[in-house]
Amino acid sequence: MEKSEKKLSTIINDLERDKATNIKNTLSSLNPSEIARLLESLTQRERNVLWQMVDQEDEGEILKELIEEVRQNLISQMNASELIAATQDMELDDLADILSDLPNQITDQVIKALDKQDQNRLESVISYDENTAGGLTNPKIVSTRRGVNIDGLMKYLRNMHSLPENTNYIYVINRDNQYIGAVKLVDLFTQSKEMPIEEIMDSNVKAINADVLAEEVAIEFQDLDLISAPVTDSNNRLLGQITIDDVVDVIQDQVNSEIFNMAGLDDEDDMFAPIFISSKRRAVWLGANLVAAFIVATAVSLFQETLDQIVILAVLMPIVASMGGVAGNQTLILVIRGIAMGKIQKSNAIKLLNKEALVALLNGFIWSIVVSIFAVILFNTKWEIGIIVGLSMLINIIASAIAGVSIPFFLKRIGIDPALAGGVMMTTLTDVLGFITFLGLATLFLPYIV
Amino acid sequence: MEKSEKKLSTIINDLERDKATNIKNTLSSLNPSEIARLLESLTQRERNVLWQMVDQEDEGEILKELIEEVRQNLISQMNASELIAATQDMELDDLADILSDLPNQITDQVIKALDKQDQNRLESVISYDENTAGGLTNPKIVSTRRGVNIDGLMKYLRNMHSLPENTNYIYVINRDNQYIGAVKLVDLFTQSKEMPIEEIMDSNVKAINADVLAEEVAIEFQDLDLISAPVTDSNNRLLGQITIDDVVDVIQDQVNSEIFNMAGLDDEDDMFAPIFISSKRRAVWLGANLVAAFIVATAVSLFQETLDQIVILAVLMPIVASMGGVAGNQTLILVIRGIAMGKIQKSNAIKLLNKEALVALLNGFIWSIVVSIFAVILFNTKWEIGIIVGLSMLINIIASAIAGVSIPFFLKRIGIDPALAGGVMMTTLTDVLGFITFLGLATLFLPYIV
Repeated sequence: MEKSEKKLSTIINDLERDKATNIKNTLSSLNPSEIARLLESLTQRERNVLWQMVDQEDEGEILKELIEEVRQNLISQMNASELIAATQDMELDDLADILSDLPNQITDQVIKALDKQDQNRLESVISYDENTAGGLTNPKIVSTRRGVNIDGLMKYLRNMHSLPENTNYIYVINRDNQYIGAVKLVDLFTQSKEMPIEEIMDSNVKAINADVLAEEVAIEFQDLDLISAPVTDSNNRLLGQITIDDVVDVIQDQVNSEIFNMAGLDDEDDMFAPIFISSKRRAVWLGANLVAAFIVATAVSLFQETLDQIVILAVLMPIVASMGGVAGNQTLILVIRGIAMGKIQKSNAIKLLNKEALVALLNGFIWSIVVSIFAVILFNTKWEIGIIVGLSMLINIIASAIAGVSIPFFLKRIGIDPALAGGVMMTTLTDVLGFITFLGLATLFLPYIV
Repeated sequence: MEKSEKKLSTIINDLERDKATNIKNTLSSLNPSEIARLLESLTQRERNVLWQMVDQEDEGEILKELIEEVRQNLISQMNASELIAATQDMELDDLADILSDLPNQITDQVIKALDKQDQNRLESVISYDENTAGGLTNPKIVSTRRGVNIDGLMKYLRNMHSLPENTNYIYVINRDNQYIGAVKLVDLFTQSKEMPIEEIMDSNVKAINADVLAEEVAIEFQDLDLISAPVTDSNNRLLGQITIDDVVDVIQDQVNSEIFNMAGLDDEDDMFAPIFISSKRRAVWLGANLVAAFIVATAVSLFQETLDQIVILAVLMPIVASMGGVAGNQTLILVIRGIAMGKIQKSNAIKLLNKEALVALLNGFIWSIVVSIFAVILFNTKWEIGIIVGLSMLINIIASAIAGVSIPFFLKRIGIDPALAGGVMMTTLTDVLGFITFLGLATLFLPYIV
């Protein structure tokens, strides 16, 4: 971590002082992912200068690693010949990812620059959604027909220039290009050379259908500790393979967007986007929360008369609301993550609800007593008010535990991402409920506490 | 996802109806990771019943996949012979992970059950911290001396029973077991058989030092799209290799704990832990937040006289505090994640601070006007109060943007996880600041607004 801090500060210093040679030296010691991260860490002005100094043959790899907005931004400044040069040596699945960010006329030129076989392969990849197995598929694989033995297969391999990166299976297909099975590369070394490959085919290697969602592919790779897996279309024709490095990106993107969504942010946005653009993006989220805040204020406004008579209520009311929010948020995050990881489903949700409600009851009870006592001591209020604070807090904590389990399922059902809207809903609910129970109870018992 | 929902509901139904045969059938169709997830999704009673039905030879693999608390729980119910049988066929790096959860006398027995070579290998793995490269290292690799050619190496491989899973490199060492380089398995197929292996050694394959932190290993694997990497000790002696499947677990654990920490939760806790244990865990977090809530209440209490005179202030004050919290939280999450991903460092933090402050100024300005107007219209207050609401909200939003960048760096410096404490600090700060600026300004201009 210190190392990457040092690289960034070196680059920023050198950019400020215009030391092009130093910068090029630093860049040559970095891999494309590190350069991508550096570019994302810079302001747009610094970034554009640095981009000019990047080695042209690294540009494609770097573009692929960048978050979408930064990538689009750099692409928009490149001319056709630069873009074609940059994308020339890219893996087809990576090329497919950035193709949609290229201007239309350049897309055509990039595709035409490929040989006929790669053109067909690329078209097959881009015909699938980016978030499916098909979109993750790299069509460059090694495949063979049945009826060969190990010796024959090895001679065939020896005639190839090189094998694609991350090859650990040779796929066996029939004459219609349909997937039959996979031979582990390591098995070619240890088995007798005369062995027909059908006999050492690993029957456990199941093909993934191209339409399967990327997040399900990620779970399968993690569950089975896969390095690569074959991908087939709906007719069982072999399209290519998915490799773990692309799956790791899927996993990273998924959790990044979950964390960012919790705050109404988008993980593909440039953190150094122009002020006006960033403000516009944030404005929507602030607006939604403002509506929620006004709903909460309206709830409080119903009790103006009570507040007018006992001003200490205004002092204590934030405690009730915030404790409900904190407790509810714990359950909410537990459930959102649990659903994402496949551990919480409809069939165990009720049991979890019971458990969370009981935990809330127990904790609510204990902390309500503490709050009651401290409210009386610290703010010198009547003990009746202390009891009302504690009681309303208890109700609020239990209600928010129930809401914490229910809200994510409700949002999922109506097609809204729980990570995005769950927090706002939870806060609004616990605030409104906290203020209403507290001020409501106070109003009810007003004659005794004035 | 629907599939896993169906599996869980089937198991729960069958458990309720005691249908052991059905359950065993379902289990036999699942891989160890899926069974681990199922076990984590069940209540403790259901889980204990299901565990009895699990195939003994899968138990080790399943234990390894479970979160810590569930694993410890199941282990505590197994006797010595069951545990020894379960751990018998595990990979050494996986065995090392669960070894610390085993009772001491069983640990000894498990180690003694290994052959001498594996005992030494295991001891080398457990001598390193779980969160370092050394702890992730699998000592089972294929290595060779210099001076062999491809043909000789292939003959040597053919004499092995089988190669370890995920082998994609053969490592070259000297007579002191020091790492020299790695030969890509795929290159053995395509190069001439007479070629000495030194000549096809891939000089780009750098060994990772065993002391490097696991999270840095994860970044390196992602940056370089690695499948495996050799690990050496401080004397450059080859200890084994790290494979991508273990790195994926590191990545998952890291983001899981980041998300859970944000709500004061621990991702290794059983979500169906007994009520009393769960309550005790949550109590600490609620207690910390209660202290924060009392600090906020104390801030409000300073203005009781003002609130007593203008009750509408109590209605509007939650708006000021919550909008500051929402805006600040956006910056906070952006920065926490940015630091975790290595994109935000000290050297670009000031520029980000400037940018976030400007975004806050622009958005704060716009929404302050909206709030002022709506406060006057909806709650029928004086326009002077409307202006005070807007102005204090503007101040609060800008201050929380600054806090959102500063808090994570401050917490990191004093050695506290920003994800854990950042949210509480932010909320407390925006609440206190929001209430003080709003009620303070109102007090200042009291003569004009009563």
